[in-house]
Amino acid sequence: MAKEKMNVAVVGATGYAGCELIKILLGHPEVTITSVSRRAEGSDRISDIFPVFRGQLELPCENVNVPRICKSADIIFLSLPHKVSMIFVPEFLKAGKKVIDLSADYRFKDAAVYEKWYGTGHTSPELLKAAVYGLPELNRAEISKSGFVANPGCYPTGSILGCVPLLKEGMIDVSQIIIDAKSGATGAGRTPSLALMFSETNENLKAYKVNQHQHMPEIDQALSDAAGSKVEITFTPHLVPMNRGILSTIYMTLRKDSSAEELLKVYGRFYKDAPFVRVLDEGVFPETKDVLGTNFCDIGIKVTGKRAIVITAIDNLYKGASSQAVHNMNLMQGFDEKLGLV
Amino acid sequence: MAKEKMNVAVVGATGYAGCELIKILLGHPEVTITSVSRRAEGSDRISDIFPVFRGQLELPCENVNVPRICKSADIIFLSLPHKVSMIFVPEFLKAGKKVIDLSADYRFKDAAVYEKWYGTGHTSPELLKAAVYGLPELNRAEISKSGFVANPGCYPTGSILGCVPLLKEGMIDVSQIIIDAKSGATGAGRTPSLALMFSETNENLKAYKVNQHQHMPEIDQALSDAAGSKVEITFTPHLVPMNRGILSTIYMTLRKDSSAEELLKVYGRFYKDAPFVRVLDEGVFPETKDVLGTNFCDIGIKVTGKRAIVITAIDNLYKGASSQAVHNMNLMQGFDEKLGLV
Amino acid sequence: MAKEKMNVAVVGATGYAGCELIKILLGHPEVTITSVSRRAEGSDRISDIFPVFRGQLELPCENVNVPRICKSADIIFLSLPHKVSMIFVPEFLKAGKKVIDLSADYRFKDAAVYEKWYGTGHTSPELLKAAVYGLPELNRAEISKSGFVANPGCYPTGSILGCVPLLKEGMIDVSQIIIDAKSGATGAGRTPSLALMFSETNENLKAYKVNQHQHMPEIDQALSDAAGSKVEITFTPHLVPMNRGILSTIYMTLRKDSSAEELLKVYGRFYKDAPFVRVLDEGVFPETKDVLGTNFCDIGIKVTGKRAIVITAIDNLYKGASSQAVHNMNLMQGFDEKLGLV
Amino acid sequence: MAKEKMNVAVVGATGYAGCELIKILLGHPEVTITSVSRRAEGSDRISDIFPVFRGQLELPCENVNVPRICKSADIIFLSLPHKVSMIFVPEFLKAGKKVIDLSADYRFKDAAVYEKWYGTGHTSPELLKAAVYGLPELNRAEISKSGFVANPGCYPTGSILGCVPLLKEGMIDVSQIIIDAKSGATGAGRTPSLALMFSETNENLKAYKVNQHQHMPEIDQALSDAAGSKVEITFTPHLVPMNRGILSTIYMTLRKDSSAEELLKVYGRFYKDAPFVRVLDEGVFPETKDVLGTNFCDIGIKVTGKRAIVITAIDNLYKGASSQAVHNMNLMQGFDEKLGLV
Repeated sequence: MAKEKMNVAVVGATGYAGCELIKILLGHPEVTITSVSRRAEGSDRISDIFPVFRGQLELPCENVNVPRICKSADIIFLSLPHKVSMIFVPEFLKAGKKVIDLSADYRFKDAAVYEKWYGTGHTSPELLKAAVYGLPELNRAEISKSGFVANPGCYPTGSILGCVPLLKEGMIDVSQIIIDAKSGATGAGRTPSLALMFSETNENLKAYKVNQHQHMPEIDQALSDAAGSKVEITFTPHLVPMNRGILSTIYMTLRKDSSAEELLKVYGRFYKDAPFVRVLDEGVFPETKDVLGTNFCDIGIKVTGKRAIVITAIDNLYKGASSQAVHNMNLMQGFDEKLGLV
Repeated sequence: MAKEKMNVAVVGATGYAGCELIKILLGHPEVTITSVSRRAEGSDRISDIFPVFRGQLELPCENVNVPRICKSADIIFLSLPHKVSMIFVPEFLKAGKKVIDLSADYRFKDAAVYEKWYGTGHTSPELLKAAVYGLPELNRAEISKSGFVANPGCYPTGSILGCVPLLKEGMIDVSQIIIDAKSGATGAGRTPSLALMFSETNENLKAYKVNQHQHMPEIDQALSDAAGSKVEITFTPHLVPMNRGILSTIYMTLRKDSSAEELLKVYGRFYKDAPFVRVLDEGVFPETKDVLGTNFCDIGIKVTGKRAIVITAIDNLYKGASSQAVHNMNLMQGFDEKLGLV
Repeated sequence: MAKEKMNVAVVGATGYAGCELIKILLGHPEVTITSVSRRAEGSDRISDIFPVFRGQLELPCENVNVPRICKSADIIFLSLPHKVSMIFVPEFLKAGKKVIDLSADYRFKDAAVYEKWYGTGHTSPELLKAAVYGLPELNRAEISKSGFVANPGCYPTGSILGCVPLLKEGMIDVSQIIIDAKSGATGAGRTPSLALMFSETNENLKAYKVNQHQHMPEIDQALSDAAGSKVEITFTPHLVPMNRGILSTIYMTLRKDSSAEELLKVYGRFYKDAPFVRVLDEGVFPETKDVLGTNFCDIGIKVTGKRAIVITAIDNLYKGASSQAVHNMNLMQGFDEKLGLV
Repeated sequence: MAKEKMNVAVVGATGYAGCELIKILLGHPEVTITSVSRRAEGSDRISDIFPVFRGQLELPCENVNVPRICKSADIIFLSLPHKVSMIFVPEFLKAGKKVIDLSADYRFKDAAVYEKWYGTGHTSPELLKAAVYGLPELNRAEISKSGFVANPGCYPTGSILGCVPLLKEGMIDVSQIIIDAKSGATGAGRTPSLALMFSETNENLKAYKVNQHQHMPEIDQALSDAAGSKVEITFTPHLVPMNRGILSTIYMTLRKDSSAEELLKVYGRFYKDAPFVRVLDEGVFPETKDVLGTNFCDIGIKVTGKRAIVITAIDNLYKGASSQAVHNMNLMQGFDEKLGLV
């Protein structure tokens, strides 16, 4: 009667995505967190690092020790920075563990693209083919059969979900895709820097890494796959004075005149089996607060002449990271895909 | 020795632009505020409405009374809602006063455009020709000779300044202008509504009036003028959880390949005599905090292939309203155009 | 095998507490929401009012109809304004329903106190005795046996939990209790007003209703009960530019010298069976972010001479309203008291 | 006719107070900034450090070089961290310069107090007597005659102004002063740290350094001076998610019953010649937004029984630092004390 739960480990537990991942896993009925770790010496409890966990999870957060983690857990979430993740992933895979990697290290099919945009050689390029890109709305079947998932980046999640239905139908000019994305500050991580201090970010708005953000090639890869040909995107990320949420305003050029109604049908059809994508009624546009703390991606559409404006909203830490990782786990384990998620 | 100052009136003093206008005028060495009024009964002091003025300006803020205002002031700023401004402007003009109107009522050359977008008949269309559009960077000479200026809207200020140099040079495709604009909440005014409450706007980001904002035809008029032909713009305004600032990210298609360097030269040339436009070095992009409380518009440029990304930042209440109005006054009065402004 | 769930209704579903209550109930394994209603005509779906519920809860949110609600649910949560709640509570009780009322209407033992502070006659004073004050840390046993709970106010929850252990032990001067409380803006409700607009509340801090807030008599009643004699409190609430959270900084005068260590023991003992109160180590003080979205109340203590400084943090919408209501339901139903809660 | 302006230097120009100080001095009609410097190598322009100054002030911001600064300026503002300021102040004084030091280094009469609270030996204790504590409302005459002013801390400014009138009149129990102070994040400075990152501070509220903040002895010294006997204060600072502003809620015990009206008279009398203190009407309480960007301190008062609640609001970077420094300069130079200030 007492059904056994799966043991899971969170490697890289000290960032914002790691924190939210732990919150979700704590509420998941089929798993137990048996290990949390980080890439640093010390033996703070996780509840010292994130006091929200006081009385909820009192595990020590030790330096990553692969053998010890492998003993305690069967599913490994890695929420480490890129370059660091690939130090450990091969070992967990070799040990036969299921791996869900939230870093960028295994998102690319082509190591050269990774090396160009992340400025470092890839130390296990042979594993790139094995990793399934963990966007359930695109790759549900592959994820379900896989033991190794590369969880998408936050900007890519919102951008790809907004473009793919039209690309799949061949309805837009693949050389004219503009993504104007706006993110809350947790998207920039938890490492102290002047630009991310409250007094600098509050009451301020700026674009950054204009058309050279490292998430661009990831978007490019997914959209080109969907289109069946190389797309060309313009991508401008912005930093917004809020903690969480990404709103992506996407401008596309339609190949032939189509109404918003027709486009909404395309999106509705494409996402009809996707429990976490909500296509909004004509004239309604998403707001980040309506997806906050959820795994939802909300999508609104406007058409004006040959221009389609598609707006998507996600919670960057949930659908853009942690809850999507748990969604992937649900698929990999054969659980109900909505289990433990809102 | 005691040089006489000009007497000025602020009609419509209870909104955010009115408040900032009073602040600037209080610090202006050549004027004295002799009258503040509003469109409502009551006789609160302005320092009851805006306690920041306690001890600084204790005038009563009475219902608009044109004859009384005309007796006390020679320059009239109107910071009233559209439709309301045109009730009073003709009377002030008839009385021979200089008028700077911050509403939309006299910004259009074509009454039909106004009537379509503002949903009301225009009651003094014959005055539209007389009004000079008060964007000093475009119309310095006309403003200097005029007694009647229609002060630009906030979104139009940031958008127009970002597009005009390239349009004047014929360098861009006039049918492919996309303006993705983001504004702080003061831009939405001071009338209570659910959507503007702190708990709704804070930690939220949304687009609104997607491609149907009433500032579109104003942008359209100025850009078409500059281009010498009808432009076509796509315009998406967003509400950002901050009090002040507008960042406009503008996507344009270049007619032929040009480098960022070449474009920067075009902008530098166009704005070389404009003390309040700062064209940033290549690779540097504006942030709203750097123009906060100033009359500056900062402009940054990126080129990628045929795409030019131009980003402008203004303070919506200053360059987008109040300080621009004072700039116009300086020009109309023959003062140093920077007087009383930062 | 398919265990039957309890049917619950949320009456007054359009405020912030109502919204969060629905979120919690949607995730609760033992209940089904069968009815949501409000005090207004119309038939919007709850997902139109709070788009976060799109696809999660699509019930219509109709005007309160007691017979219809009684047919569909056995447990009734009322999240209505004071004065309005007492219109309906007697009817639900008469119909034999279990009632958890989040308003102030049944929190007082003495109708005269209610009438003085809420400025209205009480229409069912005979029910005041029947209602149990729903602070589980004080009244767990009574709540567990009751069918009618008056859920505490947000400020009272944080204040009472911070004072009661010392009062019960007779350790403090009952005439010298100062509570300096600071709340996020959702505490002020969802009715539009100038003072609560984003542009007024953001980048601002103020005290309000200084020593005359309607939550004072509620704190007074609970503290006097605990002390066994009439206490005298000074209470200053402040509005802080954040959505959620209350931090209460409480200054008390110790009757005799005691160390922080001794006080911490008193608190530890008092709350040893309270799963949702966390007494922090000496030198550690609570932050609202660590209780956000949880039912926790965190407590930190400092002693200096005869002065005890006790600081408590709660989420005003959770422990201060919705999650505490569900905690009460868990007790009333004999569920595990932590069920469905964090 | 072209009256000569004074040359001023800002030493330690890279913090928030330094930035605002430059803004104020740029608008001051009697001074010219001839030098800005910092305690670090490099030769960035000040407009690279604070882009708001682009086109307004393009001076290089070099490492502090006392002889060079002495050549270029006659009035020296030091906005350096404590411990660092006292490295340079003696040299500037020896060179015969007027010095306004914004650090804590010369605020104390007793070097031992400084050494205890700031954890370092004082390297020029002989100068402590020479420095005038630059709170104009208390020490206008001395400041006017002085060449060396120690500018008060931000918390002390708001706290002292709220307490002194009652202490001078002997109206309160000197052993029962509780100051519950709340500050925006710029008060914590500009050095990156995890606790001050946007994602940590936004949507959060906390107390810190509870009754052990280094500003306590400064408040203590001024209040004891005013009372003529040693006072005892309890002081709890809080970090509020806003950039600027300090609200101090002060609880005092009256020696005998007095009405708010009587207290307001005491305050009105005490501040009748202070142009930057505004005593509010009974029932009105200050808000930080009403003093933002000004040199004002607003004060509101409530009396309940023997308890006086005095609430003060200042802009921590203005009245709590930069504008107060300029106020001091105005007095030292014999300028109109309001010159260049709001």
